[in-house]
Amino acid sequence: MDERVREHARVLVDWSARVEAGDNVVVSVGPDAHELAVAVAERLGERGANLVATYAAGEVTRAYLRASTGEFDEDPAHELALAENADVYLSLGGGRNASATADVPGEIRQAHRKARTGVREARYDSRWVSTAHPTRSLAQRANMAYEEYREFAYDAILRDWETLAEEMAKMKTVLDDGEEVRLVGAGTDLTMRIDGRTAVNSAASVAYDSHNLPSGEVFTAPYATEGEVTFDVPMTIEGEAVRDVRLEFADGEVVAHDAAQGADVIGEILDTDEGARRLGELGIGMNRGIDRYTDNILFDEKMGDTVHLAVGRAYDACLPEGETGNESAVHTDLITDVSEDSRLEVDGEVVQRNGRFRWEDGFEG
Amino acid sequence: MDERVREHARVLVDWSARVEAGDNVVVSVGPDAHELAVAVAERLGERGANLVATYAAGEVTRAYLRASTGEFDEDPAHELALAENADVYLSLGGGRNASATADVPGEIRQAHRKARTGVREARYDSRWVSTAHPTRSLAQRANMAYEEYREFAYDAILRDWETLAEEMAKMKTVLDDGEEVRLVGAGTDLTMRIDGRTAVNSAASVAYDSHNLPSGEVFTAPYATEGEVTFDVPMTIEGEAVRDVRLEFADGEVVAHDAAQGADVIGEILDTDEGARRLGELGIGMNRGIDRYTDNILFDEKMGDTVHLAVGRAYDACLPEGETGNESAVHTDLITDVSEDSRLEVDGEVVQRNGRFRWEDGFEG
Repeated sequence: MDERVREHARVLVDWSARVEAGDNVVVSVGPDAHELAVAVAERLGERGANLVATYAAGEVTRAYLRASTGEFDEDPAHELALAENADVYLSLGGGRNASATADVPGEIRQAHRKARTGVREARYDSRWVSTAHPTRSLAQRANMAYEEYREFAYDAILRDWETLAEEMAKMKTVLDDGEEVRLVGAGTDLTMRIDGRTAVNSAASVAYDSHNLPSGEVFTAPYATEGEVTFDVPMTIEGEAVRDVRLEFADGEVVAHDAAQGADVIGEILDTDEGARRLGELGIGMNRGIDRYTDNILFDEKMGDTVHLAVGRAYDACLPEGETGNESAVHTDLITDVSEDSRLEVDGEVVQRNGRFRWEDGFEG
Repeated sequence: MDERVREHARVLVDWSARVEAGDNVVVSVGPDAHELAVAVAERLGERGANLVATYAAGEVTRAYLRASTGEFDEDPAHELALAENADVYLSLGGGRNASATADVPGEIRQAHRKARTGVREARYDSRWVSTAHPTRSLAQRANMAYEEYREFAYDAILRDWETLAEEMAKMKTVLDDGEEVRLVGAGTDLTMRIDGRTAVNSAASVAYDSHNLPSGEVFTAPYATEGEVTFDVPMTIEGEAVRDVRLEFADGEVVAHDAAQGADVIGEILDTDEGARRLGELGIGMNRGIDRYTDNILFDEKMGDTVHLAVGRAYDACLPEGETGNESAVHTDLITDVSEDSRLEVDGEVVQRNGRFRWEDGFEG
């Protein structure tokens, strides 16, 4: 086995999920994530944790959903009981085809998702972490050779997380102390309130309220958004290519939108519910191990020199105790490149210009 | 998808497990059983059942067990809760290497098995069915080409189970009414009491107390065994080749054993506990879709023209209500070919001679 696979498993189990002896762990395995599952099982065995492996295959889900009537029992007892009794939930993404469920009607997908709200909540109550095994399917989506993609993925995953967490803590402090954020760039001049909100130092560990590996972003929950923003990082959203989305905000709400490609899918998302027209997240990518777009949100939104905004649901960790932020059934991230001709200001002071942070060499205030 | 895979799924879900709308189903998927899992998911979707897929990979188990200290928590809550809340448990065997766990020390394997007794019992309380997807690994073990093996496997699995159940009912009646069985052949002259025991018409359906697909055997729980028996069907037991095992019984207990190959592993099994020296099962193979040995007990023990005996644990279904039969941690089947120079008698009357049953053409009483 490639030593990087073992190292990935160690980071996931030890750093990300903080697994201890006696923990009840569910490991969800994609069909092509077998090798990582073997490495994770080895680490869980060393840790003295208890392992249940589930099988997360898009083709299995597709066959089940397409054959169904579209009506589903709510939170099936066996699935719910597994989630409720798990201390840790590790999702090892790695399918054979990222579009495996592309021909499942949206309403069936949504009905199934809705019927499993309790299962999902139980999972979110555990120490859950999502990661991805670098597969040929992901390499293809990134337009990369397999070996090239593996190097890319492990550069992103096998960081010195402790050091990155220290650097990200600086950005967290700026946002926690700040009241208003302004983002300026080509086709972008946007202001948001962040007063009273708490930023998450997303250092790829549940100890940091961070549930992705790789991670490497600092995010908060903005409100009262005004102005316009252009997202120039290309993405696939709900199976459709989306390019150069432009959103215009007034009174915290999207009042106009267009896109060079995929305007329809953006329109559908914005029409989902009331919260879908408001921002749920402002995230600042700080993982410099990620140096290119690979059409995979797990990686893209953490990329150094990018900022992302999500319409829809806000994360509880950013909100004052007991307060609910923006609520919505959706949470859709959109990304803008800030490496050139752009700046991020907090309360009128520039924190990042052309990708450089205030505390970095080469920063020009 | 090969239509036989879909047909396999239909037999499994409809005939074997009798799945109904609202059933909570666990489907355990071997790494190379993906295609069957897709077909089963489709059928479960049509039925309106609820699906949780688990991943049963020998290499994952091996990594976990070898890394562990050999001490395990008893019945982990998440694993137990999943089993206890499942109405149906379908095991889709299909690994990439039948010997994937060959180098896990026996004591670790046993400790892990023992720590999960409650999980296993909960599973046995559900409508459980074990089947196997015909894989290249199984073809190799059978010394057969892949396509040839697939034809063999589907011949065994896609039977007219209703008709076979009717034929097997005749054998069940003979055994239920009988008091003593005598098996005579080359190197074999064995008598067993079956008085008071109930035979199972194992027609590959939970409706018949039958939990294997393929099945096609009638079995009961004998006792008071006397005489000797030779098992001439070659097998692999606990990773070791076993040939021509000979057991000698007195007072219901094995008093001597030898084998042309693998005598050691047989000796170890017999020494496991007190019950391991007594018979737990007498089974009569009646699936004529299985016409050759493939070194896979799921198929071999159901083969027409064979009789098998198991040392160790007896099945509850064969015993009077509330009575416990032979108890043991083991249940090891051994098979003898009865196609030539052999006869099976019940209370002195010949029921099967040279493979032909009393009710078949060509039977020579």
